Amino acid sequence: MASGNLLVAQGGGPTAVVNCSLLGVVEEARRMKTKIGKIIGALRSIDGLLEEDLVDLGKESPVNLRKISLKPGAALGSCRRKMVEEDYGRILDVLKKFDVRYFMYIGGNGSMHTVHKVDQLARSVGYELKAIGIPKTIDNDLAYTDHCPGFGSAAKYFASVTREIGLDVASLPPPISVIETLGRNTGWLAASASLAAEEEGDAPNLIYVPERPFSLEEFLSDISDVYDKLGRAVIVVSEGLKDESGLYLGGVNSAAARDGFGRDLPGGAASFLAAKISEQLKLRARSEKPGLAARTAAEYASTVDRKEAYLVGKTAVRSAVKGQSGVMMTLEREKGSKYRCVVGQVPLNNVAIAEKPLPPDFINTKGNFVTEAFLNYCRPIVGDAIKSFPVLAKHRLNMKPAR
Amino acid sequence: MASGNLLVAQGGGPTAVVNCSLLGVVEEARRMKTKIGKIIGALRSIDGLLEEDLVDLGKESPVNLRKISLKPGAALGSCRRKMVEEDYGRILDVLKKFDVRYFMYIGGNGSMHTVHKVDQLARSVGYELKAIGIPKTIDNDLAYTDHCPGFGSAAKYFASVTREIGLDVASLPPPISVIETLGRNTGWLAASASLAAEEEGDAPNLIYVPERPFSLEEFLSDISDVYDKLGRAVIVVSEGLKDESGLYLGGVNSAAARDGFGRDLPGGAASFLAAKISEQLKLRARSEKPGLAARTAAEYASTVDRKEAYLVGKTAVRSAVKGQSGVMMTLEREKGSKYRCVVGQVPLNNVAIAEKPLPPDFINTKGNFVTEAFLNYCRPIVGDAIKSFPVLAKHRLNMKPAR
Repeated sequence: MASGNLLVAQGGGPTAVVNCSLLGVVEEARRMKTKIGKIIGALRSIDGLLEEDLVDLGKESPVNLRKISLKPGAALGSCRRKMVEEDYGRILDVLKKFDVRYFMYIGGNGSMHTVHKVDQLARSVGYELKAIGIPKTIDNDLAYTDHCPGFGSAAKYFASVTREIGLDVASLPPPISVIETLGRNTGWLAASASLAAEEEGDAPNLIYVPERPFSLEEFLSDISDVYDKLGRAVIVVSEGLKDESGLYLGGVNSAAARDGFGRDLPGGAASFLAAKISEQLKLRARSEKPGLAARTAAEYASTVDRKEAYLVGKTAVRSAVKGQSGVMMTLEREKGSKYRCVVGQVPLNNVAIAEKPLPPDFINTKGNFVTEAFLNYCRPIVGDAIKSFPVLAKHRLNMKPAR
Repeated sequence: MASGNLLVAQGGGPTAVVNCSLLGVVEEARRMKTKIGKIIGALRSIDGLLEEDLVDLGKESPVNLRKISLKPGAALGSCRRKMVEEDYGRILDVLKKFDVRYFMYIGGNGSMHTVHKVDQLARSVGYELKAIGIPKTIDNDLAYTDHCPGFGSAAKYFASVTREIGLDVASLPPPISVIETLGRNTGWLAASASLAAEEEGDAPNLIYVPERPFSLEEFLSDISDVYDKLGRAVIVVSEGLKDESGLYLGGVNSAAARDGFGRDLPGGAASFLAAKISEQLKLRARSEKPGLAARTAAEYASTVDRKEAYLVGKTAVRSAVKGQSGVMMTLEREKGSKYRCVVGQVPLNNVAIAEKPLPPDFINTKGNFVTEAFLNYCRPIVGDAIKSFPVLAKHRLNMKPAR
């Protein structure tokens, strides 16, 4: 006789591996037949949970679920709900109604806060519930974990695309290309593009992150220096760069300056900066903003990230069955020369609000690139080598002129 | 005794398969030992040719060259030279100096004009030269060919990325995503994103191309209609969209509004339009502009495109050895139910200036999507299926409430 049912949901923005965590949860729950009865999925995250829009994941074909683990977007659907206080009580009511004793929520900062609240509420009313947060975010801004599932794939995307664009630009100068990364208010993803460079002069030549104050003057001067040396430049900028007054760069001209509710959103930094380069340096400059493609491009997903996302989902179920609750799963990097992460956990009251910026020692003194310490941190998380391409040997033509 | 040397160069913007054409040229030239002596590559296109910056491609490792055929960017390097009249005479001087009898130029409209001029000049001075144009452009705007090598891969890129972004957006509404494609003044690439949709409601929901006058009012009204029905919308717009005064949309706010020389360049349409959607429809809207990534993403290159690019390069050498000159290679689609293209040719004086727009019967009446005729045209050119992903079966939860 199982001790209760399990409910899983996916919150916030999708990642390339958010369905690997879902797979980890479902496959592990299936193995726990004596403990776990139904494996319930809430469609559209908390929205669907509250409307009892629930599916029986135990009836999904295991083979199909494996394929879905590689699919972009959140397979169960997600939502952007602004939680209000009474939502938590209603969540608990639905969990009780369907005898859910294991609540697994895959999400970012906001979702972790929800798990925390639900866990506290269940404790306060004496309802036996194991609520666990399974981290996911491409932004890597969750504290208390070495890194976050979802980041490795987006990092691989930006490193790969930066290398590929770098090859294009190197073969047809003199353009300047400014590539905008996702990452909101932290520079983890912009920094990850650094993995593209193999040799001196390779793209990216410069990287700017929101953790350092941005100076347009220094930015233009840095580009001039690179251009003078190479006759080209590939620059990576975080969407979260702000001007001195604290507004997102290019926000005024940007598509994403305001959402439907008038909220300030990042986006448009690359377009804004490319225009400044054109105007002030009189160089041909263009911008690339892959945007959502960075978290949906299945072809670029990292195999390490997939494995870790799966493992975190799987371990969450194990921990819940062992009696843990009110915790977020974490990845802990083991000391030693070879990269290895084990799954750990952290109490959710620590996690909910914190937003983890790039530490100072990951950014160079000039604030225009990363350090070796960042490369050592990031490379094994991405795991897969960034696709490399050979060069022509370019044997000089050795022949006497015909006449 | 070979009858002379061959020189190959790559002009204009790179494509994902521009090095496949190079491979086709080199491999075929190697087989023609009795006709062709040295296989010379001009680095940096005409710039390098004029500076005699030449390499001996015959000495390249065949295995390495095969790998390079899959590499982004032009392996020999390209240039943006503005040709002046005396350049043609100087090109001919260099060709004579190195006893070049076969001049193979891989490029777009501008490059074809160069081949044409060099061919005419050689004829007029009685220098025995076979000059052949090998078409490449992601924009597909070259006339007299069914399609152009390079287009199929960029088309596959935009279709794939649109599908992937569509899955993300569908799993987390209510955003509107506006994806900007390359393609300059023609809508071929924007149109190609249509291959992403498998079922009613799939992304892309709307497509706008520069071949039709753009009305912001109708655009917003189309989006309202889609949003009312689906709660989301993925819209694909060509970078070449213009407003009623003939200026590129978003040009004023765009990075690419002007290049270093004050020339008007396309780019920024998606960002501009997403801002309008946010402002006027009060919907959360964002823009994606993969830009150069669309022509460099090796992972998305089309196998049909690779094969055709190779074939066109190879056939160019054969045609030259057979005595053809002053022609551009073309792809001719054979009649019949199964897709098959053979390589043909067209005199270069026909090609040089023409820019081929999407024909009217490829665009729907409302001007907001493509027709079945376009899909039938484009699908076999892309060749590979756009990567498809299964869906959850979503068995409704069937259980009695616990209480």
